Amino acid sequence: MTASSHHSSSPAGIPSWIAVDWGTSNLRVWAMGDSADILAEAQSPLGMNAIAGDDKLSFEGVLVGLIDGWLAPDARDVPVVICGMAGAKQGWREAPYCDVPASSSDLAHGAVNPNVRDPRITVSILPGLCQREDADVMRGEETQLVGFMKQNPDFAGWVCLPGTHSKWARVADGKITGFRTYMSGEVFALLSQNSILRHSVGDDWDDAAFADAIRAAKAQPSGFLHSLFTVRAGALVAREGQAVPSGVAVLSGTVIGAEIADVLGLLQMDEEIALIGAGKLASLYQEALAVHGHKATPMDGTSITLAGLTQARQVLTNASQRN
Amino acid sequence: MTASSHHSSSPAGIPSWIAVDWGTSNLRVWAMGDSADILAEAQSPLGMNAIAGDDKLSFEGVLVGLIDGWLAPDARDVPVVICGMAGAKQGWREAPYCDVPASSSDLAHGAVNPNVRDPRITVSILPGLCQREDADVMRGEETQLVGFMKQNPDFAGWVCLPGTHSKWARVADGKITGFRTYMSGEVFALLSQNSILRHSVGDDWDDAAFADAIRAAKAQPSGFLHSLFTVRAGALVAREGQAVPSGVAVLSGTVIGAEIADVLGLLQMDEEIALIGAGKLASLYQEALAVHGHKATPMDGTSITLAGLTQARQVLTNASQRN
Repeated sequence: MTASSHHSSSPAGIPSWIAVDWGTSNLRVWAMGDSADILAEAQSPLGMNAIAGDDKLSFEGVLVGLIDGWLAPDARDVPVVICGMAGAKQGWREAPYCDVPASSSDLAHGAVNPNVRDPRITVSILPGLCQREDADVMRGEETQLVGFMKQNPDFAGWVCLPGTHSKWARVADGKITGFRTYMSGEVFALLSQNSILRHSVGDDWDDAAFADAIRAAKAQPSGFLHSLFTVRAGALVAREGQAVPSGVAVLSGTVIGAEIADVLGLLQMDEEIALIGAGKLASLYQEALAVHGHKATPMDGTSITLAGLTQARQVLTNASQRN
Repeated sequence: MTASSHHSSSPAGIPSWIAVDWGTSNLRVWAMGDSADILAEAQSPLGMNAIAGDDKLSFEGVLVGLIDGWLAPDARDVPVVICGMAGAKQGWREAPYCDVPASSSDLAHGAVNPNVRDPRITVSILPGLCQREDADVMRGEETQLVGFMKQNPDFAGWVCLPGTHSKWARVADGKITGFRTYMSGEVFALLSQNSILRHSVGDDWDDAAFADAIRAAKAQPSGFLHSLFTVRAGALVAREGQAVPSGVAVLSGTVIGAEIADVLGLLQMDEEIALIGAGKLASLYQEALAVHGHKATPMDGTSITLAGLTQARQVLTNASQRN
């Protein structure tokens, strides 16, 4: 591991380090002060896929293009800490998966340092997390989990990160002990846009139909592939004048409900549930969990990502100071 | 209902009636002799969708174009019995769904007779079947079930018709008492062609991986949306030199296995399972059922469709003779 020089003080506006979340389809960067304060931030649509698919782009070029203004011409070795798909096989440099169970330190110690031409920065790319038994992987969410554990050291239970591929991770005693990915977001998008159900999902939303579908998913946990078709059949069998429940609410409840029913089957007594995310999707998960009597208030994902990158930065600094 | 004149005898090669299976994406017709013998057959890609989407096509025009050569110029009122999507709302003429429980006679008596200009034919379009509680619908498969019941009058159990939207119908005492549609075929196609899993499904097939996925689906009946992701994760977490199971076999087994696990949960003691279909897909269902100890030999769907149309023709003839 290359040394990450520790800036004991920074001129106002000059970052002591730079935090980066480099996903599949976008890139976010933050100029960070000494005490985890945000001096500036920027983002770009140049996620891993855009760069991997374009010969003229390089990861370093894209990164420096975005943070150039934050770096003094004579800056040296400003630490850049990156989580996400930049560490994938098709990314900047592969950061091999860390195995569960994993602590914050285990993850930070798995960081890799790609060679960079620009002398002003030194780069650490954090690893993703993998599970060999009941095969599963994540890249990026593990850093949110690190941030969550830092902010909630006594939490024991499941943390939900809704998305295209939703993640549910079991967390206890400062470790991520296991996790499950659900393809709910992608399956919902394919069904509502590309399947026969696209004719049945309108724009009308109906909270009660969503809640009914959430309950039905738990009552018939093995019936997912059948329940989907009722989104279409429900409208076809309705009698004259009979109200037809909102197709998009039933489909959404069927998909999210199937995911949640499976997780609730794994929940041990006394385990808590936490929810990281924002906007409409996080609200739907909150509502779905409430149907089953679980209170989970969505927590802002960005600040948790930054808390995770800050924690990783701290571990890396301590390690370099010991060397 | 218009009278269906009964031809007590037919010159060789002149059909006494015409059987039609008019689906969403194709049309099959058979010239039938008096004793359910096939004199000729033909097919066309002009299914309901092609006709509904083309101003220049009419259902009667397409049908007559295909059977014109079978009809003598002076023929009158040759009965044409049609099953399938021609009876849908967007079809030739809507034949409203018949409710479960339904016998062969119930279905035949729900036939509708569109007006036709060609005096050589008279047309009956058979209804589909619907279930109001646990909403579900079928159009076309109910005629296969009628043919199956005719050929297997003592059967009591579930009949499986694999396909884009697989149907499982419960049959006993000459009636279809209920049924369930599973979107398995369409979900498999979307996931293998349009989802992130498309990168993980190659051409290599592996019977053992398929059987393992069938078993896993029954062991984790609520975990479908998670199990899908292991198709991808399994390859990513494999250690150097470790064999990766065939992605397409795991995906296929995960989808078909989820469907079958759900049906097996509904199977009452002593109920049998029958399988209607042909080719690779029917073989996969046969193999999947065998994993769980159920023997079901695929039966040819075409001859069963014709048996169902023949049965409907008989009921309609008897009814017209009574009038």
